[in-house]
Amino acid sequence: MKILVGYYSRTGNTKKMAEAIVKGIKKEGIEVDLRDVNKIKPDDLLNYEALIFGSPTYYGVMAAELKKLLDESVVYHGKLSGKIGGAFTSAGGIGGGAETTILSILEAFLIHGMIVIGESGIFHYGPVSIGSPDEKVLESCTKYGIKIAQLTKKICSE
Amino acid sequence: MKILVGYYSRTGNTKKMAEAIVKGIKKEGIEVDLRDVNKIKPDDLLNYEALIFGSPTYYGVMAAELKKLLDESVVYHGKLSGKIGGAFTSAGGIGGGAETTILSILEAFLIHGMIVIGESGIFHYGPVSIGSPDEKVLESCTKYGIKIAQLTKKICSE
Amino acid sequence: MKILVGYYSRTGNTKKMAEAIVKGIKKEGIEVDLRDVNKIKPDDLLNYEALIFGSPTYYGVMAAELKKLLDESVVYHGKLSGKIGGAFTSAGGIGGGAETTILSILEAFLIHGMIVIGESGIFHYGPVSIGSPDEKVLESCTKYGIKIAQLTKKICSE
Amino acid sequence: MKILVGYYSRTGNTKKMAEAIVKGIKKEGIEVDLRDVNKIKPDDLLNYEALIFGSPTYYGVMAAELKKLLDESVVYHGKLSGKIGGAFTSAGGIGGGAETTILSILEAFLIHGMIVIGESGIFHYGPVSIGSPDEKVLESCTKYGIKIAQLTKKICSE
Repeated sequence: MKILVGYYSRTGNTKKMAEAIVKGIKKEGIEVDLRDVNKIKPDDLLNYEALIFGSPTYYGVMAAELKKLLDESVVYHGKLSGKIGGAFTSAGGIGGGAETTILSILEAFLIHGMIVIGESGIFHYGPVSIGSPDEKVLESCTKYGIKIAQLTKKICSE
Repeated sequence: MKILVGYYSRTGNTKKMAEAIVKGIKKEGIEVDLRDVNKIKPDDLLNYEALIFGSPTYYGVMAAELKKLLDESVVYHGKLSGKIGGAFTSAGGIGGGAETTILSILEAFLIHGMIVIGESGIFHYGPVSIGSPDEKVLESCTKYGIKIAQLTKKICSE
Repeated sequence: MKILVGYYSRTGNTKKMAEAIVKGIKKEGIEVDLRDVNKIKPDDLLNYEALIFGSPTYYGVMAAELKKLLDESVVYHGKLSGKIGGAFTSAGGIGGGAETTILSILEAFLIHGMIVIGESGIFHYGPVSIGSPDEKVLESCTKYGIKIAQLTKKICSE
Repeated sequence: MKILVGYYSRTGNTKKMAEAIVKGIKKEGIEVDLRDVNKIKPDDLLNYEALIFGSPTYYGVMAAELKKLLDESVVYHGKLSGKIGGAFTSAGGIGGGAETTILSILEAFLIHGMIVIGESGIFHYGPVSIGSPDEKVLESCTKYGIKIAQLTKKICSE
């Protein structure tokens, strides 16, 4: 059982969130790879039970670099069905497109036939940082990692 | 283990879809209740492992009657966390708001902390009928019922 | 030339935002009505060149009370085409559904054939308050009122 | 006064829709450029009063090639404010992400501070083709071109 955390990050904010998510996954004892989306190939996606992708909020939609990976993943359409998906973003301001950025990633996962989970506490669709992630945001990211890891264990433990 | 299929329907199209979904759930041997959303109380939601709600496409967002139930469900916020959610709609035309109607329901489920699943075949976010559901749409609804039932068994079978 | 600002508000937060928007519209010298959505009838919508609706963020979608008004407005489908639309919300937290709530209103306006405008500064889709609106949020609301009023003058000044 | 119609197209379906939109704009006597998004530079965007972009439906979000252009347009953030925006898509199936693809483009436009318009007839958010565009779809595209051209004249005729 293995989880992939992929990020696109220019300022380092999204990467810091990714690292906090990885921390949560490790706490649950699941193997995890942390990778820049530019270094992920469509083939790689087949090797994981869960994919958690993060992008800065650029115009309310995931960055082109991440979308490129998802567009190319069409060669494996149907093969990712039943895997778990998660998403996170760092944005410039409140109401600035963070939610729609996360949803753009989750929508791609749903079209792949994947499973996504929300959160009744804060950051319902997935973790959001306004600017550089503070302690509270990083803690939410770690909890998100734990949550996805637990769901992965539940669904894939056959 | 029990699943609730709720619908709001004036013309009967959404109700027909609901019945086809129920058929799929029964095939998987899971108990299922079929109810008009006007007859569902927030308390009822606690008794099911999965909730599948359908609405006609009115202005690209679930009908007020279904939103009312979800607004009232706030008294149990956090208690539905981890349950499975699904959504379907009947619309007047292609590109007429069917997808955003389904997503409006799935977004509410995610905020409740629930789990949703997409489909790599047709009707990625959930079943859509343009006008009265034909055989092909009803079959997709039945398959959707099977899919949600199987996920429910996988997640809740402890 | 007349603009309607409609709100649904239990705690008063959304109402305060509505009042700040009204202030902006008045600064532009356009007549404006401020009304609780429960007191707005579908007929009323015909009397305005622009509609600006606000709702609390309940499960990531406009409140049932506002959706009810929009569902009923179907009797005038096509008649609101070309009018201006705007939306705002008060939410419990960042990443908590505020953006999708605003978009649920804007989507309904687009389906009515209406015109909507974004903002390159803060609150791109429409004003958002996290909890009770502070001075900065109220100022953004007033600017939003000015913006919608100016667009209304530009489009309807024949 | 000038309008840009940009498209990304592999099979030619989205390009055919773009050509039909151009036809509508010409009918309204407005100058129009038709360009592959890979050939559009962010600088170019400044020269037009309206931008109409089309993309195939790949995983429910505009193609990476179009997103790349929009990501790069950040160097002119604020400068596109007040321009008109429109969007269209060709998809593989009903309920397959066409609406969310169009909305992903419109959301980017709103964040730029641009103006978008819906349609009370068919294809509310923007024209959609399921597979190769037939006569009815092409006609809707032409009408969409006329609509955007007329709005552009109304807003920019100073």
